[in-house]
Amino acid sequence: MQLTQALHRAVATRPDGLATICGGRRRTFVEYRDRVARLASALRANGVAIGDRVGILSLNTDRYLEAYMAIPWAGAAFNPINTRWSGSEIAYSLDDCDTRVLLFDDAFVAMVAELKEKSRSLATLIHVGDRPTPAGMLSYEALSAAHDPVPDAGRRGRDLAGVFYTGGTTGHPKGVMLSHEAFVHNALVLANEGMARAGDVALHAAPMFHIADFCLTNAQWIVGGTQVALPGFTPLATLQALQRERITAMVLVPTMIQMVVDHPQATDFDLSSLRMLAYGGSPINEALLDRAQGLLPAAQFMQVYGMTELAPTISVLPPALHSSEGRATGRLRSAGVPCTGIRVRIVAPDGQDVPRGEIGEIIVRSPGRMLGYWGKAEETAAALERTPNVGWMHTGDGGRIDEAGFLYVVDRVKDMIISGGENVYSIEVEQAVAKHPAVAACAVIGVPDPQWGERVHAVVVLKAGQHATGEEIREHCKTLIGGYKCPRSVEFVAALPVTGAGKVLKRELREPYWQGKGRGVS
Amino acid sequence: MQLTQALHRAVATRPDGLATICGGRRRTFVEYRDRVARLASALRANGVAIGDRVGILSLNTDRYLEAYMAIPWAGAAFNPINTRWSGSEIAYSLDDCDTRVLLFDDAFVAMVAELKEKSRSLATLIHVGDRPTPAGMLSYEALSAAHDPVPDAGRRGRDLAGVFYTGGTTGHPKGVMLSHEAFVHNALVLANEGMARAGDVALHAAPMFHIADFCLTNAQWIVGGTQVALPGFTPLATLQALQRERITAMVLVPTMIQMVVDHPQATDFDLSSLRMLAYGGSPINEALLDRAQGLLPAAQFMQVYGMTELAPTISVLPPALHSSEGRATGRLRSAGVPCTGIRVRIVAPDGQDVPRGEIGEIIVRSPGRMLGYWGKAEETAAALERTPNVGWMHTGDGGRIDEAGFLYVVDRVKDMIISGGENVYSIEVEQAVAKHPAVAACAVIGVPDPQWGERVHAVVVLKAGQHATGEEIREHCKTLIGGYKCPRSVEFVAALPVTGAGKVLKRELREPYWQGKGRGVS
Repeated sequence: MQLTQALHRAVATRPDGLATICGGRRRTFVEYRDRVARLASALRANGVAIGDRVGILSLNTDRYLEAYMAIPWAGAAFNPINTRWSGSEIAYSLDDCDTRVLLFDDAFVAMVAELKEKSRSLATLIHVGDRPTPAGMLSYEALSAAHDPVPDAGRRGRDLAGVFYTGGTTGHPKGVMLSHEAFVHNALVLANEGMARAGDVALHAAPMFHIADFCLTNAQWIVGGTQVALPGFTPLATLQALQRERITAMVLVPTMIQMVVDHPQATDFDLSSLRMLAYGGSPINEALLDRAQGLLPAAQFMQVYGMTELAPTISVLPPALHSSEGRATGRLRSAGVPCTGIRVRIVAPDGQDVPRGEIGEIIVRSPGRMLGYWGKAEETAAALERTPNVGWMHTGDGGRIDEAGFLYVVDRVKDMIISGGENVYSIEVEQAVAKHPAVAACAVIGVPDPQWGERVHAVVVLKAGQHATGEEIREHCKTLIGGYKCPRSVEFVAALPVTGAGKVLKRELREPYWQGKGRGVS
Repeated sequence: MQLTQALHRAVATRPDGLATICGGRRRTFVEYRDRVARLASALRANGVAIGDRVGILSLNTDRYLEAYMAIPWAGAAFNPINTRWSGSEIAYSLDDCDTRVLLFDDAFVAMVAELKEKSRSLATLIHVGDRPTPAGMLSYEALSAAHDPVPDAGRRGRDLAGVFYTGGTTGHPKGVMLSHEAFVHNALVLANEGMARAGDVALHAAPMFHIADFCLTNAQWIVGGTQVALPGFTPLATLQALQRERITAMVLVPTMIQMVVDHPQATDFDLSSLRMLAYGGSPINEALLDRAQGLLPAAQFMQVYGMTELAPTISVLPPALHSSEGRATGRLRSAGVPCTGIRVRIVAPDGQDVPRGEIGEIIVRSPGRMLGYWGKAEETAAALERTPNVGWMHTGDGGRIDEAGFLYVVDRVKDMIISGGENVYSIEVEQAVAKHPAVAACAVIGVPDPQWGERVHAVVVLKAGQHATGEEIREHCKTLIGGYKCPRSVEFVAALPVTGAGKVLKRELREPYWQGKGRGVS
């Protein structure tokens, strides 16, 4: 199991096929390999040794895809950096795993100046942009021209391939160490679920630093697909790229899907090439799925549930469950079934299995399991070495498995609303609210309430030109779910705050309500 | 990695989808699981313990597919038996790995009576046929009705899943022990190469006991495909099934493809559903491929090279190399490129790599590697523990890798013809002979010759109603390959002798020429 094998295979079977597209730049697999082997050569020449970490701080480009392959080719491990983080956060993560070499693009020239001050470990800066290279820094293109290709270092199996930092809700971010084997298994599994297929042209609209998007990179690698980089997500650029490049596969989060689907010009584009739209981060609500299926008639939908520590896939809700027949089973809100080679159990705090159907912690055994958290033996042991389930990843997610084997991720404890002594799962309320014809997007949170302890509160984005009152939305929900679950208050906003991966930041929504109150807002 | 996980997944995602079709019998995945769990229950009740071997001696049926799943479900290992073997050979293999329980169908009632005499280990006989169960034997259907389903034993990873016997060219057959992990990796890899895809309806026309056909079973399991069983291969029954069941995927050997394609009624059938025709055993010759592509316009072709000891896949020649553009690269005669997670090297007798392009022994490192040969520590060590390549499977096949990474299997030493001091690879001559318009099939062997040492000799099957002389075929070959490689003698026969897997038995062709001569005919 060797991440770089995919490139050797693609060069053999479709040497002149397109590997990457970025704006007007198109490169074949032979060119991709040549650039990868030259960058790897330059990294080695600049002191990168086997197992060293190399950071990438960049918007999406074809060069990001080159770096993702060149770093393991050189025998090192990539450390893709969250572009939304502050300088202090980035410096912390660079120093935490002793990343001395950083690749960065034009968008981060100012940030890199700050990082040079703040980071202790950072030594070598390689500029991968199109503008002139800042003084005192190396130029990717100049390095590439100056170094002859080196052979693949051949790292494999349990060798370290990458370190992905997870935000975490408290304390410092943790560096998740993932192996070649973990990634290759994940790629095989996702390609097999339909995320990648020979002949694909895949679009990276979500940020490449995120492991959700790396899933697509990795799965497309092993089928030799063509990968198209958009610098960043906008609904219009996504629509344009879908039509222009005849995109066949894409990974987004539901919030991004909503923005694409509800874009006023969406129907002006030819979107008939898209065969596979994978989404992660949360289940999709039925109303949005209806609209998306209307706009994208050829697309199959697939939900991926995972976490960084599992490289990341745990389960997939396959396309069949998104059809009207599949939706009738009520399992659209599930996270699907565990993928091939991956086992899931639901356990009580004592580590024993709960009875089928009951809620407990989701634990996972998978070839995708992390090697550990960088430099954090205690947290690693807490996640992987917990008796009696040693070797199982303890996800910290609450979940249940139904009689048919479908996994449901219930809110993490902090997202569950306890109102009048009843547990309310926000996702169920969100599904109901989203079915209102005027609603474009929504998030449901618990806010303090003198009568109910917590009150179900909906934050709603209306569709352009549409109107609805809080009372109308509440009455609409009553036709779908129990009265105690319906929002007692509704707030209308222009947009929901989202993470880099497009997940709704419920913490930010809760904050103004809970300040000075007992409940934490993490 | 657990072979039975595929059934759990399929029951969850398409419970009412068709799992098996056999004649008029159609069973859903829920029914399949129920029958599997009942048969597993019956096996346990009849003394089958964790790790025990259970034999299967049967033509292709849906019940074969039930047994293949029920045996690991019970925690045991399947031992699928070559239906062409003699009673003595079968008894040897049963006793070799201490198989005490045997499932058999109507076609083998007489053989089982013989086995009862000849085998020391055989104790329990379970009849899985449609006719009345012979006296003193158990009935599958009665057992199934009498035993409630048991839970899956949950065997996984490096646990033994199956023992496949390989003929071997000398001495006794060897029992190849293969693990759950080996099979699951193989299934993921082959599905990913295109052998299986959600929505497939796969046809088993080749014998199910053979690991080449088990590839299809296994790959279809993990995508939840529908599997159709034909009792045995005939070209007409294959054509009928293709049309009747709208078959999408199939595995055959080139000899079988030739018989289907050249069948006089072939063009009477609607064969438009077939999207994937995988073949193994040998490369396909271009003339046959042309005819097959003409008959099956929607089919993609894929060659699989492997060996039982590797569960079995080593490399795949993908569909793109079968197009006219791909064929122009001259790589149709190759065995393709190593699959994901599998590494191939070519080594000299001292175990060191030969220079790129040169011929040596093919050695392979793969998650599909066997656990060993049953009860044969010495042979296992010779295959897997050879210094300096410990852990690599030594295939015994000669091969080379070209500059682009394509693997070529040259004849095993015994199949290479040495004529006038020149090495002649029979496959190259066969390719040339097969391009003659009157030729349906052919095999090329070396026969003793006073002048040349060995003489290139072609054994030819002509198409119905066609005619050609030996001289015409020789002249035809001279237009394609060097004169010293062209057949110096040609023999016309009605059919070529083939193995159970449809491989041409060159040994039988050589035998009459070499009797009493120096060269072995194995």
